[in-house]
Amino acid sequence: MFRKYPVEEHNVKFMVKILDIATRGVLLNRADARRIGVLDGDRVQIINPENGVTATAFVETTLTIAQQGTIGVYSITNEKLHLADGNEVEVREAGRPKSLDFIKKKMDGVKLSKEETLTVIRDVVNDDISAAELTAFITATYINPLDMDEIEYLTRAMVETGEQIKFSSRPIVDKHSIGGVPGNKISLLVVPIIAASGLKIPKTSSRAITGAGGTADLMEVLAFVEFSSSEVQQMTEKIGGCIVWGGATNIAPADDRIIIQEYPFKIDARGQMLASVMAKKSAVGANLVVIDIPVGLNTKVPTIQEGRKLAREFIELGERLNMKVECALTYGDTPVGHSIGPKLEVIEALKVLEGATEPNSFIQKSISIAGIALEMSGKAARGAGAAMAYELLVKGKALEKFRRIIEIQGGDPNVKSSDILPGEHQFVVNAPTSGYIIEMNNKSLISLARTAGAPHDRGAGVLLHAKKGKLVKAGEPLFTIYADRSWRLQQAIEEGRRLMPVLVEGMLLDRVPSTVEL
Amino acid sequence: MFRKYPVEEHNVKFMVKILDIATRGVLLNRADARRIGVLDGDRVQIINPENGVTATAFVETTLTIAQQGTIGVYSITNEKLHLADGNEVEVREAGRPKSLDFIKKKMDGVKLSKEETLTVIRDVVNDDISAAELTAFITATYINPLDMDEIEYLTRAMVETGEQIKFSSRPIVDKHSIGGVPGNKISLLVVPIIAASGLKIPKTSSRAITGAGGTADLMEVLAFVEFSSSEVQQMTEKIGGCIVWGGATNIAPADDRIIIQEYPFKIDARGQMLASVMAKKSAVGANLVVIDIPVGLNTKVPTIQEGRKLAREFIELGERLNMKVECALTYGDTPVGHSIGPKLEVIEALKVLEGATEPNSFIQKSISIAGIALEMSGKAARGAGAAMAYELLVKGKALEKFRRIIEIQGGDPNVKSSDILPGEHQFVVNAPTSGYIIEMNNKSLISLARTAGAPHDRGAGVLLHAKKGKLVKAGEPLFTIYADRSWRLQQAIEEGRRLMPVLVEGMLLDRVPSTVEL
Repeated sequence: MFRKYPVEEHNVKFMVKILDIATRGVLLNRADARRIGVLDGDRVQIINPENGVTATAFVETTLTIAQQGTIGVYSITNEKLHLADGNEVEVREAGRPKSLDFIKKKMDGVKLSKEETLTVIRDVVNDDISAAELTAFITATYINPLDMDEIEYLTRAMVETGEQIKFSSRPIVDKHSIGGVPGNKISLLVVPIIAASGLKIPKTSSRAITGAGGTADLMEVLAFVEFSSSEVQQMTEKIGGCIVWGGATNIAPADDRIIIQEYPFKIDARGQMLASVMAKKSAVGANLVVIDIPVGLNTKVPTIQEGRKLAREFIELGERLNMKVECALTYGDTPVGHSIGPKLEVIEALKVLEGATEPNSFIQKSISIAGIALEMSGKAARGAGAAMAYELLVKGKALEKFRRIIEIQGGDPNVKSSDILPGEHQFVVNAPTSGYIIEMNNKSLISLARTAGAPHDRGAGVLLHAKKGKLVKAGEPLFTIYADRSWRLQQAIEEGRRLMPVLVEGMLLDRVPSTVEL
Repeated sequence: MFRKYPVEEHNVKFMVKILDIATRGVLLNRADARRIGVLDGDRVQIINPENGVTATAFVETTLTIAQQGTIGVYSITNEKLHLADGNEVEVREAGRPKSLDFIKKKMDGVKLSKEETLTVIRDVVNDDISAAELTAFITATYINPLDMDEIEYLTRAMVETGEQIKFSSRPIVDKHSIGGVPGNKISLLVVPIIAASGLKIPKTSSRAITGAGGTADLMEVLAFVEFSSSEVQQMTEKIGGCIVWGGATNIAPADDRIIIQEYPFKIDARGQMLASVMAKKSAVGANLVVIDIPVGLNTKVPTIQEGRKLAREFIELGERLNMKVECALTYGDTPVGHSIGPKLEVIEALKVLEGATEPNSFIQKSISIAGIALEMSGKAARGAGAAMAYELLVKGKALEKFRRIIEIQGGDPNVKSSDILPGEHQFVVNAPTSGYIIEMNNKSLISLARTAGAPHDRGAGVLLHAKKGKLVKAGEPLFTIYADRSWRLQQAIEEGRRLMPVLVEGMLLDRVPSTVEL
């Protein structure tokens, strides 16, 4: 029925011009785009004939910035291709990635296989699918939730498509706190305590996406946080632990891509969240993992029942991945400690490491979580972990270890809490009436800290002077808003007026003026 | 509790540099981005103080292409701002659009109100939400289908956010064919027939997204198709009709944005499709509308039952919008006529207008659809519409009107079918065996035509020499593949070998060679 027809070359050669724009894609002259049969937004394959590396990129077009025969390559796409101005590349129309069919399948409520999931995640990591296409996948898995098999496939796919650390000896400890509780700076105590006990804890952490400060944002106040995974391994082998930003390690790189697309909608689909956490733990080589699940009305897990269900899922997923997981349901109705925002939280953590005996909520939570890990590893007897953790803290062992961590990450090991200065623009909010503090809204407090500039402005945030249940007198300070920039402080003040994140019993929530004029 | 705090200006001024890249967004020096507190991918608001126009844009960053104090503005974003090099603009961090909450609501399966739907669609049209965010909305409405109220809200929102034509007299006729059937060139007959009857038909049509040629792609072989909505109105007032590309009119502009995002997944959610069709009809001022619903295994509507259901929905939506709608369920199992691809279809349509009495499927379908409109308008008595349409066709009135349409759209009114030359690279596929043609796969035929280059390459496509049910002898031609470029023809031949779009009874589907070596 068919016979052979002579083939004509359809790879077109272009001269490269690197475009210093921190995005993905390539820029073609409109005439060239027409010549190879692509439109704006179409996918092409770029081949670097020097090293055989190929990359997929989406096309933008111009009449002037790239002359005919020249292809502009944006810098993120070039991170893969390693091209320089004047290099020659081949360009061809790229096929439609199979992932799109699998994403469509998930939209239609069909379960994805291990192989299909790996294909989607590989295409995500290789930039073979666009941000919009990834968003379709995320939306589909949010609406049609993943089952435990699919969660396992997703976790394994995230691990396999990134770098993995193989430590020569075990155990390797790790911890993770589910987000949503402001001021949850416990890693700054837990990691040094664990490392001070002689265990290894290569802690990768995130920057805040919807929060007021991720652990990486906090640690960056004191030291560098961007390290490769082999540096993470070396630092951990050498001094027992580190606190780095996971985004720089190329560990489970798919996760960051997914999180960025979830951000606009403030979603965090359960299956994706489980996979995200456990992929990062698995990829750093951890086999003993403690998960902190804050439970409370304004957190991600509103009830104990849901917390227990999530804990069982973490444990099951851990078993499937040969990891021992224990979960701690923690009190999440109010912030941990008194500080919210990078510098404010670092000051509070350093004070405790330096010997402060307050705030109790922060210290107790940190030693409980550290204690579970100490027990799981056998360092402490069952029931004796928290006490051991407390001892490592109060005897200064944790501070000493934290200084070594700061030092190896390029910071000043002699830094003191008094050296860190929070935002210079401050506004104190006083109690309008005497009474008990009856409500402290996590989401409003986070929103307030973010409006004040956190986490980007490191000095911005909220410092609480009293917590839920405390009796305050009219005129006493309730909290202080800090900002690095005065206009941000002004915006936060306005937002605070609207949100009223801290409520005192008997306080007027609103006052409706009479419409009668006298 | 709160007191007033002095406000500091936080609009930052920049000098404009227009960047000739056909995309949306702005380019900031990384230092400036940090100064105004935004990261790559964040949203900023640009204010042109000259004319007060504002636009939202997503930020990309550079160290060199935009110097500090300069903002690069990409050309699609500048279509709204009308800036020139050296102009001054103000830039501020943009707030989070409310739409994102409504999209999240739809993800959670909650029905959207009229106001919420309008907000989302307005943000789509104004580029206040990203392609990825729009994709989340599309995915959510695909999985959690819109009910009739929501479809009405979506339709009205699409109409209101674009231009609308108000004709001074009624009726205004329009027609639409649901896609999926290859070779469905009937508008090239229906529009001239309707206009020749004295009725007005301002036909906006689409370019192929997943097909081998939209009506706009076909018409562009003969004339210009990009006109403003006021030009559409003027042309229709003057000669009774036109055939333009809807994408250029700014009529229901949200629709194109949505369709582009649906493309990767080949989805066409029912509610969105209803709204898309009816919004365009409503916005051009049509009050008598015929919808052609091709029914067949490989079309968008596989069964008559589904076709009837869809028809009822079109009619109900029409009633809600004060439009009279009739639907025709048509045979969609095989292509309409013999040609698939822009030039091939135009040749076939011109031949019929010039007097050819073949292909019957194409002529019958066209006069049936035109006849319904003639009856709805009262031009023809009930049951006499098709005969009237046929008469307008065979007496040359339709050809005469089509020439006026081509002329007013800037084409050559004296063009003949023999003037149009299809792709120079051709490959004839012969019947491998004698027998009846038992299968003709629409999707495979479209795919084949697209691989050959259609719709982008106007001469590419497939010409069928025999249709389903016909008896062919071994060696007789089944179909010819046309291409403008030889490598595309080669690809199409390979794909044809794989897809086998036309099956002859008794034909081998595959041959599995023996693995035994003799």
